[in-house]
Amino acid sequence: MAEQDKSTDKPEALTAKKSENFSEWFHQLIKVADIIDQRFPVQGFLTYKPYGYEIFNNFIAILEDQLTKTGHKKCYFPIAVPERLLNKEAKHIESFNAEVFWITHGGETKFTERLALRPTSETVMYEMLSLWIRSWRDLPMKIHQSTTVYRYETKHTRPLIRDREIHWNEAHTSHATAEEAAKQIEIGVKIYSEVFKQCGVPTLFLNAADVFPGAVSAIEPYTVFPDGRSLEMGSVNNLGQRFSKAFDVKFVKEDGTEDFAYQTCYGISERVLAAVIAIHGDDKGLIIPPRIAPIQAVIVPIVFEKEKKKILASAKKLADDLKDELRIHFDDREMTAGAKFYDWELRGVPIRIEIGPRDIKNDSVTLVRRDTGKKEQVKQKELIKKIFLTLDEIQESIYKKALAWHETKIKLAKNINDIVENVQAGLLSKVLWCGNPACAADMEKKSDAVFLGYDAEDRSIKKTDECMCGNKAKHIGYIGKTY
Amino acid sequence: MAEQDKSTDKPEALTAKKSENFSEWFHQLIKVADIIDQRFPVQGFLTYKPYGYEIFNNFIAILEDQLTKTGHKKCYFPIAVPERLLNKEAKHIESFNAEVFWITHGGETKFTERLALRPTSETVMYEMLSLWIRSWRDLPMKIHQSTTVYRYETKHTRPLIRDREIHWNEAHTSHATAEEAAKQIEIGVKIYSEVFKQCGVPTLFLNAADVFPGAVSAIEPYTVFPDGRSLEMGSVNNLGQRFSKAFDVKFVKEDGTEDFAYQTCYGISERVLAAVIAIHGDDKGLIIPPRIAPIQAVIVPIVFEKEKKKILASAKKLADDLKDELRIHFDDREMTAGAKFYDWELRGVPIRIEIGPRDIKNDSVTLVRRDTGKKEQVKQKELIKKIFLTLDEIQESIYKKALAWHETKIKLAKNINDIVENVQAGLLSKVLWCGNPACAADMEKKSDAVFLGYDAEDRSIKKTDECMCGNKAKHIGYIGKTY
Repeated sequence: MAEQDKSTDKPEALTAKKSENFSEWFHQLIKVADIIDQRFPVQGFLTYKPYGYEIFNNFIAILEDQLTKTGHKKCYFPIAVPERLLNKEAKHIESFNAEVFWITHGGETKFTERLALRPTSETVMYEMLSLWIRSWRDLPMKIHQSTTVYRYETKHTRPLIRDREIHWNEAHTSHATAEEAAKQIEIGVKIYSEVFKQCGVPTLFLNAADVFPGAVSAIEPYTVFPDGRSLEMGSVNNLGQRFSKAFDVKFVKEDGTEDFAYQTCYGISERVLAAVIAIHGDDKGLIIPPRIAPIQAVIVPIVFEKEKKKILASAKKLADDLKDELRIHFDDREMTAGAKFYDWELRGVPIRIEIGPRDIKNDSVTLVRRDTGKKEQVKQKELIKKIFLTLDEIQESIYKKALAWHETKIKLAKNINDIVENVQAGLLSKVLWCGNPACAADMEKKSDAVFLGYDAEDRSIKKTDECMCGNKAKHIGYIGKTY
Repeated sequence: MAEQDKSTDKPEALTAKKSENFSEWFHQLIKVADIIDQRFPVQGFLTYKPYGYEIFNNFIAILEDQLTKTGHKKCYFPIAVPERLLNKEAKHIESFNAEVFWITHGGETKFTERLALRPTSETVMYEMLSLWIRSWRDLPMKIHQSTTVYRYETKHTRPLIRDREIHWNEAHTSHATAEEAAKQIEIGVKIYSEVFKQCGVPTLFLNAADVFPGAVSAIEPYTVFPDGRSLEMGSVNNLGQRFSKAFDVKFVKEDGTEDFAYQTCYGISERVLAAVIAIHGDDKGLIIPPRIAPIQAVIVPIVFEKEKKKILASAKKLADDLKDELRIHFDDREMTAGAKFYDWELRGVPIRIEIGPRDIKNDSVTLVRRDTGKKEQVKQKELIKKIFLTLDEIQESIYKKALAWHETKIKLAKNINDIVENVQAGLLSKVLWCGNPACAADMEKKSDAVFLGYDAEDRSIKKTDECMCGNKAKHIGYIGKTY
């Protein structure tokens, strides 16, 4: 029968508990809450369902708004990279060579040069920037694009976390001086901090222990997942002149001499959506931060047969009155109120507005918060004000809760044994670190964990603090399991 | 010297005249007005510059707004199509086989099954719809996506007109009955009509003379270019059960029996942007319809040395006052006002606001329309009202002018010789047509032109009207040169 679920995938209900089996809970939730569908028969290529895509696009809209405000212009650069361009920067091709998708034919025609699907757009963009940038007057040049990139991941794919078609935004800036590029890195971090805050995602910005030859720095935003594994959600890179020299992005300075541009690039991906789901959700389903919720409030009529018409009319009127004020949805489906409650809780709608016979009698509605479950009678004339207040409260409160929880997921490790124990307990370790990449590599090897990087902003190191190697500690490092 | 133009492409100024050499004018303009850059070394893969991309995105935003209002949900479906999916519908693969880009390798691994870059998304989407649609309750299902598709065009590529990476939006709907699908086609045409209107593009919606076996109808929106060649900007297709049978998109009806879904799909592409440029532009450059203009008004201070500070401050204040009201730009570059005028006329900004010493004295500004060049003194306190009024006037007036002009590009042809003469005169021919595809093919062969289709809405055929073949005429057909 066609009525039965044709899918061989997940059940239609959320049955896993977040605290008992986080991974199963996450996989069930992204399916049953209509975030994505991973049944398309190419591994690592997801279909975004409307609800999931709207959350993603709301996140991208916040990001693009921040980028526009800070002078980044939105562009589009081609998806196909000729092999010779990809090869122009040696370390770049070394990083990506094993995971590039190659286009080799158009129709029956075999190409003389293979085309890569962009694994990231440096090589495409900088080839064009070498034509666009000629003089100091053209600088700084800040561009960005929201698009998809492609990586033939050999590791196990995980929806929204390790896909082969990746949705992201990448920004690229070119500057006349190294100082200006360094400043831009701070701006990049600030932009992402604001975006993570609006998405309610606690973040550690960590400097990579080691960077590519020629590049200056790489800062990566991480968040710890409930299972203790950290997720790198993007990166902010000071490229120095590494690419500008390879791609001849040269400019004439005010004094008439020439120099190569100083470049930065930063990107964040749909992994932010994975973090939103993983961090805020509970056993009932998603909890979407109001700023990025596709539906900020849902109106559910509590229908009793004899007053059905009147109640539906009131609910409809309420929805019409509110529809220009916020993202509202009126659920007039023919099903029980209880089933609707279940459904909208699963989808993480921040506010539920119930309207039943008693509410109508009192000129009021019942407002229910998704995050706390708290119910409140609200007079209809005060409703708009109350909704905005509540959305702000939810936004702030779930972020605060997430920050406090995130703190509990990080624990100081004084030795390798502590790191191992923390991993077993589902925690990320903080360590005192001397700053030597070899020492970080040694910790990794002994603990079978990953040294994420160090917090360059953290000044809490004391003079007497020592790294595990016995040398003086310089930084607070972070080590643990990752995705 | 790096100061010189590294490009070997087009000059930095618009030197061609639209009336003398339309093709050269178009190619120069899309470069110098910063619409696209076609120097990326893969043929048919364009880079969108910020200004051009914003016009494109404003067009897409109008379209998506119309789609949302009519119940279409935005999704994202994967870019890579396994060969066996592409092959599921015979006529579909026949149309696209010669122009599919094939991904054959991931890193060093050769795939056992090649992946096509989507040439269009029917095969990807309908594979998923066969999982999503199970019962009449799931219908109608209306989805859309704004994305890129890939066609290895063997014809000469032309920027924005015939590319190999194509930016577009495609909508796909599934229905329980053929009647509902037919109604949806009307909605699709209405949506596109509204979009073309807001972009100021005159359009003929023509039914294809012939459709694929199994499909019901194909309606294509055309516009005539200044050189007399017609541009197909998209299509609205009633697919019937052609794909639902191939992809098993089946549903259980209310009465318990099963049927395949009745499907429609419609898409329009960046060709609309090409049409906007081609139709409205003049020898000075672009004229962008206000609704899609990235900058709706530009403020140019007319600076005299002794009052420089005062004038710049006034202009800046004006820009700040207006910035929440419309898309405004304050041009404070260090260059002559004349050079700025030239620049913004080239970019087609609808309104220029000049503010100089005399304007300040009179508490006024000088408002200049891009389309007519008309200058007017406007009191500052009346400015906002006047701007909105003028934007509306420009929007309406350039569309009216385009419609009238478009009429002059179409001429009745009574015989083959007329068609040939019309083609030579840069005109599209209207013909009386019997409705027989073979007869249309015959006209094509004899005139070396393309039969675009017929206007199913045009009821002006008289009883005595005859087709060239001597049979009774049923429809007004269109035949001419195309892109």
